[in-house]
Amino acid sequence: MSFDEPVGRAGIGSIKWDMTDMLGVTGEDVLPMWVADMDFESGPFIADALREVTETGFHGYFSTLPACYDAVAWWLETRHGWTVSTDCMNATHGIGNAIALCLDIFTAPGDPVAIMTPVYHEFTNKVRRNDREVRELPLAKDDNGLFALDFERWETLLTGAEKMLIISSPHNPAGRIWTAEEQVAIGDFCARHDLILLCDEIHHDLILPGNRHIPFPVAAPQHMDRTIMAMAASKTFNVAGGRTGFLIATDPSLQERITTRIRQFDIQPNRFGTEITRAAYSPAGAEWVDELTAYLAGNVSVFADGIAAIPGVSSMPMQSTYLAWVDFEALGMAHDEVVRRVHEDARIAPSPGPAFGTGGEHCMRFNLGTSRARVKDAVARLQKAFADVQ
Amino acid sequence: MSFDEPVGRAGIGSIKWDMTDMLGVTGEDVLPMWVADMDFESGPFIADALREVTETGFHGYFSTLPACYDAVAWWLETRHGWTVSTDCMNATHGIGNAIALCLDIFTAPGDPVAIMTPVYHEFTNKVRRNDREVRELPLAKDDNGLFALDFERWETLLTGAEKMLIISSPHNPAGRIWTAEEQVAIGDFCARHDLILLCDEIHHDLILPGNRHIPFPVAAPQHMDRTIMAMAASKTFNVAGGRTGFLIATDPSLQERITTRIRQFDIQPNRFGTEITRAAYSPAGAEWVDELTAYLAGNVSVFADGIAAIPGVSSMPMQSTYLAWVDFEALGMAHDEVVRRVHEDARIAPSPGPAFGTGGEHCMRFNLGTSRARVKDAVARLQKAFADVQ
Ligand SMILES: Cc1ncc(COP(=O)(O)O)c(C=O)c1O
Ligand SMILES: Cc1ncc(COP(=O)(O)O)c(C=O)c1O
Repeated sequence: MSFDEPVGRAGIGSIKWDMTDMLGVTGEDVLPMWVADMDFESGPFIADALREVTETGFHGYFSTLPACYDAVAWWLETRHGWTVSTDCMNATHGIGNAIALCLDIFTAPGDPVAIMTPVYHEFTNKVRRNDREVRELPLAKDDNGLFALDFERWETLLTGAEKMLIISSPHNPAGRIWTAEEQVAIGDFCARHDLILLCDEIHHDLILPGNRHIPFPVAAPQHMDRTIMAMAASKTFNVAGGRTGFLIATDPSLQERITTRIRQFDIQPNRFGTEITRAAYSPAGAEWVDELTAYLAGNVSVFADGIAAIPGVSSMPMQSTYLAWVDFEALGMAHDEVVRRVHEDARIAPSPGPAFGTGGEHCMRFNLGTSRARVKDAVARLQKAFADVQ
Repeated sequence: MSFDEPVGRAGIGSIKWDMTDMLGVTGEDVLPMWVADMDFESGPFIADALREVTETGFHGYFSTLPACYDAVAWWLETRHGWTVSTDCMNATHGIGNAIALCLDIFTAPGDPVAIMTPVYHEFTNKVRRNDREVRELPLAKDDNGLFALDFERWETLLTGAEKMLIISSPHNPAGRIWTAEEQVAIGDFCARHDLILLCDEIHHDLILPGNRHIPFPVAAPQHMDRTIMAMAASKTFNVAGGRTGFLIATDPSLQERITTRIRQFDIQPNRFGTEITRAAYSPAGAEWVDELTAYLAGNVSVFADGIAAIPGVSSMPMQSTYLAWVDFEALGMAHDEVVRRVHEDARIAPSPGPAFGTGGEHCMRFNLGTSRARVKDAVARLQKAFADVQ
């Protein structure tokens, strides 16, 4: 697998490449660094699985979901050290759908739902769209500039009406990995405030070399009575279009409520997402991910070095994911002008920071899931766009 | 396209072929004639579409849903004479999911929901699973033995608490096509009783030559203020595993409620179902369907003739679909014994009739979506299993 090969993405139906006009920036020269998918072809094992299904010519009612669950269990055991029964799993139509289902099952309209901001903008959108209230728990920063939990402050922000906490673990943006101790503390916090914890581990495979992520059920088994884990092959293997994800709950009563609702809504995964997931969670998939994360680490360091050279702009150190979080506050420039320079001068389309909630006001998220050459190009464009501040 | 070619279906992940044990009948010699998909390869235009997506290697967030909606609009216009804006459409994860969503949106727990029985067993299951009550409106039979609407009786069966009527149009089982006049009468009935009408037209393309189906919005436009149409390429093109369907409402307020709920649940179709649908609703797809229905007509007549030769057993005359409805009542045999003979003597696995509700007690549904040879074989087996009654 050569991640270095430039992949032509325009004209193949990619939102990231075709729809930057949604951000107000268009043109052939635009570098799209927003939507969280990568400019890499999916692994050959995925193409093989799709070819196999295609060549049977059979696309009717299929019986291979149990084999897919087995692959999920195998992956969790071999890659994450978590042994879990497939009985605890429910497939969903991706993680957005999984989050929406949990909101529906475990909260009621009007309930406040807590999130640790800045965080994946769709947490807020999904909570609001479902007529729940967003309770922002702003993240602090530690001495190294990484996001940090801030329980002392958060205790003062809860009203007692909150029903759920949704976390991204690892964290989107910036890829902060929550340590085992931190995860226990998050579980304790939820127990103290009687919150259901929805632990979104969609990024848990994209761990940069030298770092280690421990899945919540291994880190804090004592809190699994209130915790649901969401996971998918979609980010890891760049297959979000398959719209297949999983909710895993080891607590029988949580698990049963999820199963009931999923059956009520007739949420059944599609054949292609099922086979893609099965093919991904395999030894070949594991090898591919190891190569991918090694390559991403190179991108991350090129980007970090490049941004460090622009005074007043900083990229948060990354432990996982390909989603860099860049803070422009110290520039002392109006954010509108920052955005104008990034869009119009650098011709880059990153994700707007304010959508990530409190703490995102001066930031942008840059998607580094692309070829090294494009990352270098992005750095050069940014350095030029902010050359006057150097 | 040669529908006559025997297609090996075992071992490719088909529920119909691999899971007859759910009905209590297993073995290599079993002819599966239950689950509603066909033993035909999907058309070459579908394989081409899947190959194209596979070979891009791109399976990320995709932007081709609008093109898919355009194909739906084109299909409805050219094949069904209905011009409808794509603004009225919402994609769902198949029609089961579409029905469940409508139950959620337009009814509340405890509400009775009316269905015309015997009918597709999942109508009942979905209503019950969602803690609504099933209000059965039993179909009558006309002089030709076809299902007939029975409003006079139905008026006496409604309590006034009903919120919705779900119909299969054409009807599953037996493929009765509701005429334009009948559809108007159904709409009038709904208006009289203030019912939302969910018109499930999943079978509306599988019209046997010599018959004509008129889609509800064309037959009864005056009732579109309370009607939602559900449709999909899944039955027509044998692609239910793609889990993609559509809810279409021309009434802005119905449409808005559907859109809101679909966004709340983050119901977004997958890439493969999207591209399959787009490829299916095309001139090549239209040609394929015409060949398919001509072939199915042959199966239907072979089956009808064969069943007619068994005294006391009758197959309802079919106007559409490949789902034959066979009544064993006049045999005067206990239904258990009928089932035993069909399973153990004939080694056939049809769908059990009682699951279709009132009117299905003595019946079984036979799936004729298979090669002519298999239909002939089924007939021979049935004739042999009931040879003593001849
Ligand atoms: C934390 C997190 N959850 C969920 C998603 C989206 O998942 P899906 O595409 O399956 O809805 C993303 C995508 O970026 C994400 O970062
Ligand atoms: C009337 C009717 N509606 C819906 C379905 C199922 O649709 P889906 O597989 O998309 O849930 C069927 C399948 O036989 C059917 O006959």
